[in-house]
Amino acid sequence: MQFVLFLLQGRVMSRIITLTTDFGLTDEYVGIIKGVILTRTPEAIIVDLSHGIERQNIRQGALLIKSAYKFFPKRTIHLVVVDPGVGSHRKLILLQADEHFFLAPDNGVLGLLLEAEHFQAAYEVQCEQYYLTPVSTTFHGRDILAPVAAEVAAGLAPEAVGPGISSQALKKIETKGAKIDSDQRTITGEIISMDHFGNLQTNITGNNLKNLYGEQKSTAKIKVKDQIIIGIQSAYIERASGEMLALVNSKGYLEIAVNCGNAAIFLGADIGEKVTIAG
Amino acid sequence: MQFVLFLLQGRVMSRIITLTTDFGLTDEYVGIIKGVILTRTPEAIIVDLSHGIERQNIRQGALLIKSAYKFFPKRTIHLVVVDPGVGSHRKLILLQADEHFFLAPDNGVLGLLLEAEHFQAAYEVQCEQYYLTPVSTTFHGRDILAPVAAEVAAGLAPEAVGPGISSQALKKIETKGAKIDSDQRTITGEIISMDHFGNLQTNITGNNLKNLYGEQKSTAKIKVKDQIIIGIQSAYIERASGEMLALVNSKGYLEIAVNCGNAAIFLGADIGEKVTIAG
Amino acid sequence: MQFVLFLLQGRVMSRIITLTTDFGLTDEYVGIIKGVILTRTPEAIIVDLSHGIERQNIRQGALLIKSAYKFFPKRTIHLVVVDPGVGSHRKLILLQADEHFFLAPDNGVLGLLLEAEHFQAAYEVQCEQYYLTPVSTTFHGRDILAPVAAEVAAGLAPEAVGPGISSQALKKIETKGAKIDSDQRTITGEIISMDHFGNLQTNITGNNLKNLYGEQKSTAKIKVKDQIIIGIQSAYIERASGEMLALVNSKGYLEIAVNCGNAAIFLGADIGEKVTIAG
Repeated sequence: MQFVLFLLQGRVMSRIITLTTDFGLTDEYVGIIKGVILTRTPEAIIVDLSHGIERQNIRQGALLIKSAYKFFPKRTIHLVVVDPGVGSHRKLILLQADEHFFLAPDNGVLGLLLEAEHFQAAYEVQCEQYYLTPVSTTFHGRDILAPVAAEVAAGLAPEAVGPGISSQALKKIETKGAKIDSDQRTITGEIISMDHFGNLQTNITGNNLKNLYGEQKSTAKIKVKDQIIIGIQSAYIERASGEMLALVNSKGYLEIAVNCGNAAIFLGADIGEKVTIAG
Repeated sequence: MQFVLFLLQGRVMSRIITLTTDFGLTDEYVGIIKGVILTRTPEAIIVDLSHGIERQNIRQGALLIKSAYKFFPKRTIHLVVVDPGVGSHRKLILLQADEHFFLAPDNGVLGLLLEAEHFQAAYEVQCEQYYLTPVSTTFHGRDILAPVAAEVAAGLAPEAVGPGISSQALKKIETKGAKIDSDQRTITGEIISMDHFGNLQTNITGNNLKNLYGEQKSTAKIKVKDQIIIGIQSAYIERASGEMLALVNSKGYLEIAVNCGNAAIFLGADIGEKVTIAG
Repeated sequence: MQFVLFLLQGRVMSRIITLTTDFGLTDEYVGIIKGVILTRTPEAIIVDLSHGIERQNIRQGALLIKSAYKFFPKRTIHLVVVDPGVGSHRKLILLQADEHFFLAPDNGVLGLLLEAEHFQAAYEVQCEQYYLTPVSTTFHGRDILAPVAAEVAAGLAPEAVGPGISSQALKKIETKGAKIDSDQRTITGEIISMDHFGNLQTNITGNNLKNLYGEQKSTAKIKVKDQIIIGIQSAYIERASGEMLALVNSKGYLEIAVNCGNAAIFLGADIGEKVTIAG
């Protein structure tokens, strides 16, 4: 009996499936995906990562899944449904990377997970025998990805979902790294995301800062919009409530924040805003 | 031991309980319902369908549960708490339909699940021995429905919750079907719901269209507000980004959408808006 | 094997962990906390209480966890992350009260759970061996509280998380009780919270009312802003749709509501608004 097998195999086989979508939580779409999964694999443990991705915002989905997946056990299955091309001939893929599984449209939403050191294999999903029928043209998350995720959680071998694809053939996503000028001791980057607290994450990494300025972070001048922040702090609390600061955040990136406040509102800054640092 | 019994009985006994409410997610109400269920039946798997039903909007709740339930395994228990009459003498009912269980106030929120071909039985909930005490007059979801759901999940027979009621005695909900004029080859319907993407679902079914126009859908003229859409597409992607279109959606109904856009905003249309089709 | 032990120990060991945060649901933060917990303790059952606490609103978090915890089984672990002082020297604590466990910053968010009759023990979290490394200065929910919650769920003894602290040493939260004037037969209180429905909860308890007015609640005059409500009802439905009323809510407190309406909007009232009652 399948349930007992899961018990006996213990932690070897992952039963965790995470969900990342732009569906919101008001409609029944997320619940239906869970129903489809649990009908096939009642032992699955389903975890919501976010259903608040901005509609069709592939880049936001790509950043979120890259930030989050590694906090789950190896062999977790991550379902990512941000799918502006649903119903077209864009592929659906199963990606194996860093010992995790990812199921998503091949539209770049997995494009930040393709580094050579993590990529293991990718397959085009072509296992019609597992799909809901008839397959709609508007909800492949329900009709294709959810049942395939359930089957993989129940032990279906990745190579059984369809033919292999090379990482070169997968859709990439353009990313701009920060520009480092070692002579001038400057870094030029930009804001790439903002969170619920209004904290502004840049594309400048803690390593960028360390390599250029070493431990002398207290004299770096960070400029964003018309504001200048002096020094890089270790924690929000090192500035008074309501004061702006810069720190390396929990993802390892330079972040502009306001202690107990909202930097996005305070600065009127948005994604794409330029951030420059002089040492 | 109960847990082991669940294992042995395997998939026969459903441990899944879905929740549909108008409670929102900010307050503790949904969490409390889960606590009450898990205290009684720790093996329950609780799935949120939506807590974003508009406050006291029975029709929206009725449409959502009808769309969603069938994607769950047989014997799933669906708890639906949209309850403007809480504290009055409205009944609470356990409905068995299409081999699923539904627990809700008898106010029409289950009114779309009463078709003769699906109805199996209904019971008035009158099993005080399982209620939380004292029963409040304002939160029957917590005090009555959650504990009864937990007991049914743990194996309580449906007929043990209270006396049977005929389907005739249950509260219906008024629905307007689309009007078909076979001579004029026209269909008159209306928008009945809109989703997170701004897609507008009508009460015109794919079968209505097929019966009247056969496969010649490319010449149908759909009129909504001052706009005319020519033809019925198969997928969003068949129109350019930002263009309006009509298709039969994943629930089987005609939907007005904007590819990668928001038809509700684009049209300024709301629920109840008239939609007419000429062949 | 751990999973089997859980089965054998049955209900004795709680596997339930509840989450209360001010993180919102758009970012990946809540999902990451779940990933950290499930990586350590795959058998954990994680229940969201709320992620909609207003940013850094310790009092709102304190009220919510106090209202909600008792509907969960004994030995449930409640993780509460409202943490404006993250990165400072504020303590993280494990509180045992009323046979439940609570993990949170020592900033008052557990301050309503310290009554002598419920307090059992408290420990300062100092078990670095269980933390994620490196510990960030901005996300202790992920790096410290989630792994410690997982370990406690897996059977770690509370006293193993760190040195004991007396309840006197823990951060309290100031609360204003209602003022009772027995001679004048008046009660003066205020609105302390409002919910998704716009219902306004006061700090006046049902017992306050009963002690002063006995069962003669029908003549009490409740004044809030410029409105006067006559009598205390038993249920929303005792007033017509759209009419204002007062009742003792499901938490045992006097609440100002509008039947099928929104009292917060109707009155333009907010938290802190004065409410007076004359018998």
